[in-house]
Amino acid sequence: MYQSEEPEGKRVAADALRDFATRSMACVGVPWNDAETVADVLVTADLRGVDSHGVAQLRRYVTGIQKGVMKAKPDIRVLRESPCSAALDGDAGLGQVIGRRAMQMAIDKALSTGIGVVVVRNSNHYGMAGYYPLMALKHDLIGCSLTNARPRVVPTFARTGFYGTNPIAVGIPAGKEWPFLLDMATSVVPEGKIAVYNRLGKPLPEGWVVSRGSEPITDPADALRMLNSRQEGGILPLGGLGETHGGHKGYGLGLMVDMLSGVLSGAAYGLKVSIESSANLGHFFAAMRVDLFRPLDEFKAEMDELIRSLKSLPKADGQTRIYIHGEKEFEEHQRRSREGIPLIAPVFEDLQQLASELGIAFNL
Amino acid sequence: MYQSEEPEGKRVAADALRDFATRSMACVGVPWNDAETVADVLVTADLRGVDSHGVAQLRRYVTGIQKGVMKAKPDIRVLRESPCSAALDGDAGLGQVIGRRAMQMAIDKALSTGIGVVVVRNSNHYGMAGYYPLMALKHDLIGCSLTNARPRVVPTFARTGFYGTNPIAVGIPAGKEWPFLLDMATSVVPEGKIAVYNRLGKPLPEGWVVSRGSEPITDPADALRMLNSRQEGGILPLGGLGETHGGHKGYGLGLMVDMLSGVLSGAAYGLKVSIESSANLGHFFAAMRVDLFRPLDEFKAEMDELIRSLKSLPKADGQTRIYIHGEKEFEEHQRRSREGIPLIAPVFEDLQQLASELGIAFNL
Repeated sequence: MYQSEEPEGKRVAADALRDFATRSMACVGVPWNDAETVADVLVTADLRGVDSHGVAQLRRYVTGIQKGVMKAKPDIRVLRESPCSAALDGDAGLGQVIGRRAMQMAIDKALSTGIGVVVVRNSNHYGMAGYYPLMALKHDLIGCSLTNARPRVVPTFARTGFYGTNPIAVGIPAGKEWPFLLDMATSVVPEGKIAVYNRLGKPLPEGWVVSRGSEPITDPADALRMLNSRQEGGILPLGGLGETHGGHKGYGLGLMVDMLSGVLSGAAYGLKVSIESSANLGHFFAAMRVDLFRPLDEFKAEMDELIRSLKSLPKADGQTRIYIHGEKEFEEHQRRSREGIPLIAPVFEDLQQLASELGIAFNL
Repeated sequence: MYQSEEPEGKRVAADALRDFATRSMACVGVPWNDAETVADVLVTADLRGVDSHGVAQLRRYVTGIQKGVMKAKPDIRVLRESPCSAALDGDAGLGQVIGRRAMQMAIDKALSTGIGVVVVRNSNHYGMAGYYPLMALKHDLIGCSLTNARPRVVPTFARTGFYGTNPIAVGIPAGKEWPFLLDMATSVVPEGKIAVYNRLGKPLPEGWVVSRGSEPITDPADALRMLNSRQEGGILPLGGLGETHGGHKGYGLGLMVDMLSGVLSGAAYGLKVSIESSANLGHFFAAMRVDLFRPLDEFKAEMDELIRSLKSLPKADGQTRIYIHGEKEFEEHQRRSREGIPLIAPVFEDLQQLASELGIAFNL
């Protein structure tokens, strides 16, 4: 997850954007409630400043439905269930619809038994991974979501991409402070950041993307061409090339996500995750009650104390502030709720074009 | 976790080493069964090639008991319990004794309800984090252990260390292949690696340790002096300095571990983790049954397939093999079980000296 460094575009109200995204999805046959879910996941990302996972991706889901690789009306089935767990088949529906249903099951199980874990097979791209722990935080639960993704990341000592940017998202409640919300690709950067550098015409730092397993690529257009053509190479794991700076750890985290979301659910994994056809992605969701372990109020008070003591540490030269994970995005959510969501020109124009193609009103 | 690059020392049989470590702990008043537990955690690390967490640390625990910062006969109490969870107070006992008991509870709960999560407060250093998921793997369970540690790692944009090298250890069963066992410090390197470089007289790579939040330290002796005197600086998070290569992600993972093991259990966290007095460390253990989600045999077969397809990927230039996490250590375990555990001279001599101090037979 990252915040865009691009020049700000036209500001659009969140409600108008949510309405437009809902109508777009409904227009291609998605039931209204489900269309609202997709819109909420997208616009929540936009509000939080995670522009790579916002309405910039709306066309992807519209096209997915139109091409039949995502089903507008999936028959989501429960394959296995226990008081603390479930395994779902998403029937190739929209990832957000399947993801929200699965996370809600994990939450309901956590509220009744203390812990809920739900895995999903046969799903599609579910949007911003942090959306799902945010759902848990509304109930003061610890929440977690993992997902695999199309092959993009080069395992340590390999020559080619094998697994995806496989994010880890974990939310932990606090009291008066913002909750902790870690939402990170297990690769050194998320794929969307390379596209941003390409639009800005900025060279990539060395250590992000390599070809043939070890040659640095710093031209973002070259990097995107390589990623899209499945040529040899890909994005490096967190920790970078080789083992010296812990690249094998980032590789381990990415692989763990593939195992827990892909293999455990019975979805695709590794190179089996398709780019063109229905993705058969796997997700993993978990929710857990704090008061299994100690009173919630005590816990929240100590989370606040931890956060405050962190923020009051002396700063490195040239730095004025220490951030807690999620904090920048919670603040951006407040600001954009007031001031609107800035859409860069290519995104704004793409939505306008999409409205025209779908024959729906464009009210942004 | 890492494998030593030091010259091999005298080879000692695992059983003899286990016997010596057990007698050493028993000699300072630890009940025989508990002394065996400490010895098993240490020697398992040695067998796996994780020399930093093996009998090289035996003196630390003996001294801890002698000084009274670790209790030989703690009254480990259950503070809260549910069918899927428990919170324990370790009463300042030995971390391995408390850790093994807590992980066993998590395993028992997982075997009966599907999932078990147990947190611990008031504990001490528990040895190699991977020991505990190894216990779960023996039952074909997915296992996890987290622990906080004394402040050593510099949060992104901070000037000083705040939290520990806080490891994440996760084990996932496979079929005919070795199980996946990730056991990683969330810092760019574990602390023990700096001591190894110091003994070898090798300079540290830039990007491991900094003073005042951003100045690289490459002299390992300087680095150790700084870490031990709590001067400004410390080890960097996985991902390194700043945000360019994802240092904020490593920082987030380390912080998450401090929250789940320290705050959730009611243990110390951040700068509250003491170096001199009783540590009041916190741990987090989890175990989960695979067949909550799909048949175990199916899962294992697909884990094998994932592992084999990873290993058959084309290799980066100059590389001949792709490793799965834990694999090097499982192989080393086999080799050292046959050929003995190599103890470098300083460790061998320290054990000899310890035997003499304790007045016990030295039979290595």
